[in-house]
Amino acid sequence: MPTLCKPSVGVPEHVVTMEETLDFARTLHAGKEQLPLALRLIENTGVRKRHIVQPIEQALRHPGFEERNRIYEVESKKRCPEVIEQALANAGVAARDIDAIIYVSCTGFLMPSLTAWLINTMGFRSDTRQIPIAQLGCAAGGAAINRAHDFCTAYPGGNVLIVSCELCSLCYQPDDDGVGSLLSDGLFGDAVAAAVVRGRGGVGIALERNASYLIPNTEDWISYAVRATGFHFQLDRRVPGTMEPLAPVLRQFTSDHGWDVGKLDFYLIHAGGPRILDDLAKFLDVDREMFRHSWATLTEYGNIASAVVLDAARRLFDEEPPQPGASGIVAGFGPGITAEMAVGSWSDDPLGVLDLTRDDASIPHRDPELV
Amino acid sequence: MPTLCKPSVGVPEHVVTMEETLDFARTLHAGKEQLPLALRLIENTGVRKRHIVQPIEQALRHPGFEERNRIYEVESKKRCPEVIEQALANAGVAARDIDAIIYVSCTGFLMPSLTAWLINTMGFRSDTRQIPIAQLGCAAGGAAINRAHDFCTAYPGGNVLIVSCELCSLCYQPDDDGVGSLLSDGLFGDAVAAAVVRGRGGVGIALERNASYLIPNTEDWISYAVRATGFHFQLDRRVPGTMEPLAPVLRQFTSDHGWDVGKLDFYLIHAGGPRILDDLAKFLDVDREMFRHSWATLTEYGNIASAVVLDAARRLFDEEPPQPGASGIVAGFGPGITAEMAVGSWSDDPLGVLDLTRDDASIPHRDPELV
Repeated sequence: MPTLCKPSVGVPEHVVTMEETLDFARTLHAGKEQLPLALRLIENTGVRKRHIVQPIEQALRHPGFEERNRIYEVESKKRCPEVIEQALANAGVAARDIDAIIYVSCTGFLMPSLTAWLINTMGFRSDTRQIPIAQLGCAAGGAAINRAHDFCTAYPGGNVLIVSCELCSLCYQPDDDGVGSLLSDGLFGDAVAAAVVRGRGGVGIALERNASYLIPNTEDWISYAVRATGFHFQLDRRVPGTMEPLAPVLRQFTSDHGWDVGKLDFYLIHAGGPRILDDLAKFLDVDREMFRHSWATLTEYGNIASAVVLDAARRLFDEEPPQPGASGIVAGFGPGITAEMAVGSWSDDPLGVLDLTRDDASIPHRDPELV
Repeated sequence: MPTLCKPSVGVPEHVVTMEETLDFARTLHAGKEQLPLALRLIENTGVRKRHIVQPIEQALRHPGFEERNRIYEVESKKRCPEVIEQALANAGVAARDIDAIIYVSCTGFLMPSLTAWLINTMGFRSDTRQIPIAQLGCAAGGAAINRAHDFCTAYPGGNVLIVSCELCSLCYQPDDDGVGSLLSDGLFGDAVAAAVVRGRGGVGIALERNASYLIPNTEDWISYAVRATGFHFQLDRRVPGTMEPLAPVLRQFTSDHGWDVGKLDFYLIHAGGPRILDDLAKFLDVDREMFRHSWATLTEYGNIASAVVLDAARRLFDEEPPQPGASGIVAGFGPGITAEMAVGSWSDDPLGVLDLTRDDASIPHRDPELV
């Protein structure tokens, strides 16, 4: 069964604490009417520190979209390989064992995607499928896990590498002072995460079912305005309230699998902000402590977009591992408003012995009889 | 078996002939040293006319990246639904039967992707998976077919809608006068294409095998420079020569399937330009006439990026249909340099009777026992 192995996560060396964010806000908005609101929004994020790819003084300047995107390219090339190497090692596979790379990132735009460079420089096979996704925002981490699950269902001998490279600080827009922007200025952080979904074997979360859900008519609640200055994050005031309609969807999805969403053993939830986590725990009737991995990500790294669910998973692995068969859920939320959901159970079957009893096909480059 | 049903293709009402393109080049480059080169490049494209979303006088002006992207949004919303409705009708399915939408487009950037709007306005289910891909350029048409194939292999009862919306004229950059830009100014056209891959039943190309290939160390041969003025297409002089390394890859891929690439019944090849088609026919030892669908697309619409292979497929369907079992290949090429390849055979099994003999799972929303 497709298994999400232990993610690897890297955060940059430049740290911004909440106190520093508050200080910068006091300077930036000095004498402006939005200052008290900005300070309150920053304090309410609960983000104690964030890591960003440039020193803060540099990050606060906007050098133009072209230069921003150039920095994205340089920084992603500098930071992704090490994280990927660790993810491969965590999964016990080599680069040449990978059949597809799902690269998700909404904070820089390269064409070709970084996948081409990764294949050329890191020893991936030339026939590795490239699946770059830029337009699912924070939901893309969950989507990547789900598409990797699908791929390994189609090709049970396959392995998929997920890479999430979110350099959110490169989307900071100094001239934006709407509520959504003021909030995001204190919320988002930078991180690179990677993980392997192994079609056979591996220790981790055996992925059993996935689904997507779009809350009707909310497509402009989280969006980018695309301008000469790059991507401008736009957040509707109603977004923090979206857990009320999404909780029943998560409940039904879990119930379709024969499980009770309130009684799972682990929860890896997108830490969009504190209200998201607080509300969802309430609506699902789950103890707040059960979302501790997401809270830790939010507090220590900020909202790292599509990398959140992978970082929350990494923290689960770092704890005393769950018992084999322990049940859990992964849920990413993002623009659309889209939820990407998965349920699975803890598997400790590094050799894939349980999988050998299954009657399945292999992946095409290894076996000409695919279909 | 997953079957690519008849694509639907729409081209805009504003037509630019080769003669007009030459006239505009004479005006734009008047007195400049690149004029003779520009005229020769335009003439060599073999593109007799193209269709674009705005009158040519408007298309030649650059109103800024923000306005360009706004036009992309307006035009894609105006033009996609009708083409999608026709693709659904061609496949004999309704919007609610679609389990995933793969939306490919490299000529505008929306977040959320147009998928959210399509789901909200066209009757697709809220649990439709969204797979937006912006960074595979012209290869994305082949990639979309291949990922749809994979999805239906994972969920044999599933149906995937592919939408390719390429408004290339919105990436025209009046100030670019490198060779690649001069060429692209005479080559690219606008089009919207859509097609359904049905997991069961359907008349069309039963998809049997797919693969991807990246030519090593060519990642900067086709690329976008991302600037305040938007996406700037960059083309290396070596690109037209890429069929020499790719032909053996296509030959091996087909051979792995037990077929001879020189003796297939139909060929749906990305019409990147005339040299691509000429060279590939030569290296595969295939009669030029066998690429007639791609030539027709190139001549009548120009290079319509990821929509080319879907339009070539549409032309195949419009001819006298192949005999059941007739063999063929789909090959899309784009940045990376990436080739996305598929082989399949003509299937005339609208009720999916042949598929009912297969032992397979169903899609999750219809059957809780997915795995």
